[in-house]
Amino acid sequence: MDPKSSPCLLKFNVLLFLLILVCRHGYAQNTLISEMEELKWEKVMPGIWKASFGEKGLNPMDYTNSPKVGAIEALGDSPFPFAKDASRSLLTPDRASIRLPLNESEQIYGLGLEFEGINRRSNAYTLKVDHYGGIKGYTHAPVPFYISSEGYGVLINSSKRVKIHVGVGNRKDSNIPEPIDRTTGKNWAARPLSDAVEASVEGNGMEIFVFTGQTTLEVVQRYNLFFGGGVIPPKWGLGFWHRMHTKSSDQDVLKEIEDFEEHDFPLDVIGLEPGWQSFAYPCSFDWDTTRFPNPENFVRTLDQKGIKVNLWENPYVAPVSTMYKDISPYTGSHTVWLGEVPDFTIPEAQQVLLNHHKKNHLAIGVSGYKFDEVDGYDVWLWPDHATFPSGNDAVEIRQLYGMMMMDIFGRYFKEQNQRTYSLIRSAYIGASSHNFVLYSDYYDHKGYVTALANSSLAGLLWTPEIRNADSAEEWIRRFQSVSFSPLMMLNAWSSGKKPWSFPEVTDMVRNTIELRMKLLPYLYSAFYEYNQKGIPPFRAMVLENGYEAQETMAGGKLDDAKNPYAEQKRLEVTDQYMMGPSILVAPVFTGQKERSIVLPEGRWFDFYTGDYVGNGETITIQTKLEEIPLFVKDGGIIPMLNSVDKNSNDQSLEVRIYGSKENTYLLYNDDGISYDFEGGEYSLSELKSNLTQEGQLKGSFEELKNGNYSYGNINWSWMTNPN
Amino acid sequence: MDPKSSPCLLKFNVLLFLLILVCRHGYAQNTLISEMEELKWEKVMPGIWKASFGEKGLNPMDYTNSPKVGAIEALGDSPFPFAKDASRSLLTPDRASIRLPLNESEQIYGLGLEFEGINRRSNAYTLKVDHYGGIKGYTHAPVPFYISSEGYGVLINSSKRVKIHVGVGNRKDSNIPEPIDRTTGKNWAARPLSDAVEASVEGNGMEIFVFTGQTTLEVVQRYNLFFGGGVIPPKWGLGFWHRMHTKSSDQDVLKEIEDFEEHDFPLDVIGLEPGWQSFAYPCSFDWDTTRFPNPENFVRTLDQKGIKVNLWENPYVAPVSTMYKDISPYTGSHTVWLGEVPDFTIPEAQQVLLNHHKKNHLAIGVSGYKFDEVDGYDVWLWPDHATFPSGNDAVEIRQLYGMMMMDIFGRYFKEQNQRTYSLIRSAYIGASSHNFVLYSDYYDHKGYVTALANSSLAGLLWTPEIRNADSAEEWIRRFQSVSFSPLMMLNAWSSGKKPWSFPEVTDMVRNTIELRMKLLPYLYSAFYEYNQKGIPPFRAMVLENGYEAQETMAGGKLDDAKNPYAEQKRLEVTDQYMMGPSILVAPVFTGQKERSIVLPEGRWFDFYTGDYVGNGETITIQTKLEEIPLFVKDGGIIPMLNSVDKNSNDQSLEVRIYGSKENTYLLYNDDGISYDFEGGEYSLSELKSNLTQEGQLKGSFEELKNGNYSYGNINWSWMTNPN
Repeated sequence: MDPKSSPCLLKFNVLLFLLILVCRHGYAQNTLISEMEELKWEKVMPGIWKASFGEKGLNPMDYTNSPKVGAIEALGDSPFPFAKDASRSLLTPDRASIRLPLNESEQIYGLGLEFEGINRRSNAYTLKVDHYGGIKGYTHAPVPFYISSEGYGVLINSSKRVKIHVGVGNRKDSNIPEPIDRTTGKNWAARPLSDAVEASVEGNGMEIFVFTGQTTLEVVQRYNLFFGGGVIPPKWGLGFWHRMHTKSSDQDVLKEIEDFEEHDFPLDVIGLEPGWQSFAYPCSFDWDTTRFPNPENFVRTLDQKGIKVNLWENPYVAPVSTMYKDISPYTGSHTVWLGEVPDFTIPEAQQVLLNHHKKNHLAIGVSGYKFDEVDGYDVWLWPDHATFPSGNDAVEIRQLYGMMMMDIFGRYFKEQNQRTYSLIRSAYIGASSHNFVLYSDYYDHKGYVTALANSSLAGLLWTPEIRNADSAEEWIRRFQSVSFSPLMMLNAWSSGKKPWSFPEVTDMVRNTIELRMKLLPYLYSAFYEYNQKGIPPFRAMVLENGYEAQETMAGGKLDDAKNPYAEQKRLEVTDQYMMGPSILVAPVFTGQKERSIVLPEGRWFDFYTGDYVGNGETITIQTKLEEIPLFVKDGGIIPMLNSVDKNSNDQSLEVRIYGSKENTYLLYNDDGISYDFEGGEYSLSELKSNLTQEGQLKGSFEELKNGNYSYGNINWSWMTNPN
Repeated sequence: MDPKSSPCLLKFNVLLFLLILVCRHGYAQNTLISEMEELKWEKVMPGIWKASFGEKGLNPMDYTNSPKVGAIEALGDSPFPFAKDASRSLLTPDRASIRLPLNESEQIYGLGLEFEGINRRSNAYTLKVDHYGGIKGYTHAPVPFYISSEGYGVLINSSKRVKIHVGVGNRKDSNIPEPIDRTTGKNWAARPLSDAVEASVEGNGMEIFVFTGQTTLEVVQRYNLFFGGGVIPPKWGLGFWHRMHTKSSDQDVLKEIEDFEEHDFPLDVIGLEPGWQSFAYPCSFDWDTTRFPNPENFVRTLDQKGIKVNLWENPYVAPVSTMYKDISPYTGSHTVWLGEVPDFTIPEAQQVLLNHHKKNHLAIGVSGYKFDEVDGYDVWLWPDHATFPSGNDAVEIRQLYGMMMMDIFGRYFKEQNQRTYSLIRSAYIGASSHNFVLYSDYYDHKGYVTALANSSLAGLLWTPEIRNADSAEEWIRRFQSVSFSPLMMLNAWSSGKKPWSFPEVTDMVRNTIELRMKLLPYLYSAFYEYNQKGIPPFRAMVLENGYEAQETMAGGKLDDAKNPYAEQKRLEVTDQYMMGPSILVAPVFTGQKERSIVLPEGRWFDFYTGDYVGNGETITIQTKLEEIPLFVKDGGIIPMLNSVDKNSNDQSLEVRIYGSKENTYLLYNDDGISYDFEGGEYSLSELKSNLTQEGQLKGSFEELKNGNYSYGNINWSWMTNPN
């Protein structure tokens, strides 16, 4: 029971209000707020509620994993976060809509993989799976889940495109501000403050979930845990990825591997682009035997070198595919790039796809895929009016296509007790426990970093892959960002660039990659927290305790040619994020000689020097070409490998301690490849830094769970001088 | 009966096809083309057919004028333009769709007020009333009417948002090209050629009209005539418009008029911006009595100076409005800028609006309005899920809002036997006979000229109004374009610019305006052709006989960062258009030292010098700052006023003749203000140029219809030297 609302008084107020309106209006009775029915909330799990009305179509949760119930229960309960009787629904012949209350100071985050901005208040979005290109809500992963700064999240569990108005659009019967005469008044706003989030779908009903939390992070944790927690990638997935030119043969790959060795660059995954197939765009999914005469041998050879093979595909089936005859009965009315589109809501279609892939790729050791173009532009993909043999709506199938692909292959790999780490270009609700990372054709570096922050608010992982650069400076800057992301990939097959293509920064690129590799124990443990507690390893600053979003409204000056409505522009910090529990990452973009960083409350230290840099303030630093700015929280404990040589058995650690605050840290490890950790096959230790009587920090190590995966010896590094 | 199709043979082919598909597929029977039903076409008028299926919602034709049946009949008949059995429809639970055939070489034009490109083939559009901002199909007038280069047009008569795929998206059971392997093949295309236009709405049915024509122009004529033909503006509407600062008072207006006189600039219409009202954004629609203490006197004073008053409004009602109490029962659930939104599908709401406007503005002589923000962004306007007291869908109401406003006031002015010429920011199907001109906040000069061309393909008039400029060069270039448009307006109230604000080009600006004013007889006669025959006075080149669209596909080079799909870019000519029967207008944009012009077949001459410039070819000219390039067809007859002095009675004409071809020209005139012309109150003469035996052109004049509105004496000007 929400302590803030007194239902009797409210009911009386609503009645009075209706009476007044009816008296005033007469005719307009059906436009009163009474037209909207109160949503009936039912508790699903501690801190999670559900309401629904009408029918729903294809259920997005058919393609997500099961909740981690125990972990959700461990978070405890919290009260329903807003006045229930202010949450309302409406069904009209054309659509279903809801209205949820919003406080004046409340900020809203999330709504999927956005490349611009963090705060979603005062905007409207059409959440449509599409290429990202500037249309609000059109993106690779338009997840209809938002997080309130007041400590709750709302998920609209629909496979229809959700239109959502976040604090814009005032009902006439709502608590609306006084109008202002624009000619004479001050503070006239093109978007007056509204007291609600309103959302609709073109369908006959909706299902809504509310997730609470004591913090925004806890909201995200509950959301992720509800879908099985976060993925733990195989260790190779956290290494270096490189994609070959589409016309490369097996011999070209071997030559490329030699080049990497020669230039002393690590290499963990080789990605093969369309040309590994006998036909592509649409795809045959069959090996091109001229370029790869013996795929099995090829994959084994690479495996022996510790290199995994990842295959590019889009799901559109070419008539020449050996899979064509079997899948064709289950394809939709329209083709994409002249290939047929399997209807993966049909189990038989899933089976045909999986059987073909098992037989031809997975059985010989292929580690995963890069599923392209499951997002698509309208000019390329099937139209909304396409039909599918299952009878499911084309719009809903498009919205869920990426999720279906992840689900099909995710289940397969799980059955094989083998982890994949794959790429996909669309996702939707509840993707956190799928072993897939998103990417995009959009290539703005700053937008990529914003997307990395936003991905954590939507249960997603995202890679700011590198394709090309106009300068050596851009080259190293992009490498720095991708090295501090969930998947470190060079995807420059078309430009032909190699890590060493800009000789003046080759050493810097190598050092950056090496730093990322050394941080593996830290990063891997962060993924463990993702898996167990739903804490994203890469996080938007708004999920951080003590972070005060530095947001200002700029502009707003009337300009009849450029800004006729005197619209203000929100200036917010979108270019920094957290990695793991203690590290704040602040990427630098080409041309930036200095940059500012907003530090959450608490003392912060330079990662490289251990020097104190500030506390709950905005600092400005001079950038260095060779360094991505990294800052560590007071007490930060950072375990790092001493050696990143794949052929070395050296598993000894340097454990860095920053600042002067006592702290504990959970160090996780496992076999790095299987799901045995779910059965308890892992090592867990506690790293502690305690103050001695002399006021010095002292490190200690305690094995919490015996396992076969403990690291070697530890050297403690005290990064910060006392006082 | 279409001679190209043999129904028996086709039926057999379809059966055979089905048989093959069923044998091959089994499961997928409901995805065969057989799932689509053949559209049943019924002839409505000569060259006009209709087909419909299912239900339709709000009918756009409720807000259009009646057909000019006689004029349509005069165009004659022509056969149904494509294979009827290739035109198909489908109703699914979620939407209604159609499929119409497309030849390989067929080009498609139209689809409303677009600011980019002319040719719509190989693209997909969501036709939504919105601000224009780069989203394909989101525009102020997203008219679901397209014109084929094969000589027919298709109108989807729906108030739902139409999604239309113009030659993109291949059904698997259609005539699809062979796939190409992108890795090895040449000519792989991200948008393979498709053999259909497919369109859908989220609704339960559709109504479709087909308009034929021997030429693309005749298609447009039939379309316009079906909606009552084109408007003839009052003569003052073709003069110079100037909008006052929003805070201006009656005294400021009088001072401004003096300034215009002092600087020797014509002035025909004064526009008052929001501040004429006691409250605006939302609007009171009541005079602000501090700025306008005696509106009646004010309007009369201006009228005596030959200056009309036009009032800015948006339709959103402020609580302080004296109209509020009466209209409030008929408003929707949501406000816009905190003002209530009248549901103008309800006759009572229309009546309240009209009564208030009659009493307060029209009765005292206000000439018309500028209806703003009937287009709107989603963040400003009511959401799709808003409800209205009529029960009509919010999306449909939004799509038709501008049309409803035009219809309400159009009927009023007609009843008063008074022509208005007003501005509005959204329109839809069948707007040609409404006395309204569209405008936009979008301010790209080149885009504005493209819009001017495209407006003719959608039954619209459009003004590239001037708001501001960064340089004197831009200032004169924009004046040149607006002077050769349906409405010559300076709307620089916010920047405070006057026509003489860039002294170095003031004389050029004055000369440009004067040239437009001198061309009034020519332009007014062109509007007569619009009215009588549906021929747009400003026309895209694709409506011109002998025009060969110079279209090339450029680019298409793979670039992993900037063009990963190696998409080609269509380069087409969008920066020239026709005005009246003979003048080709080729505006120049800031910075252009030279420009090319594509001349249709036939000999063409420089408007200013009469010199021959080319014939069916692309020419390049050096631009002159003081001149907008204008070219005249061989035989062109251009009547021009000798005097543009409002106070002069001189109605004598200079009639210019270009080239050496015999020609006749219809010169039209009437009282310039009323609808009496519809009862025959007008003058019509024929101007002829005939070759004498000596091979010289000789002009003659014949009064076809006696009237009181004949011009004065004619001087013939032979612009081109013989040989």
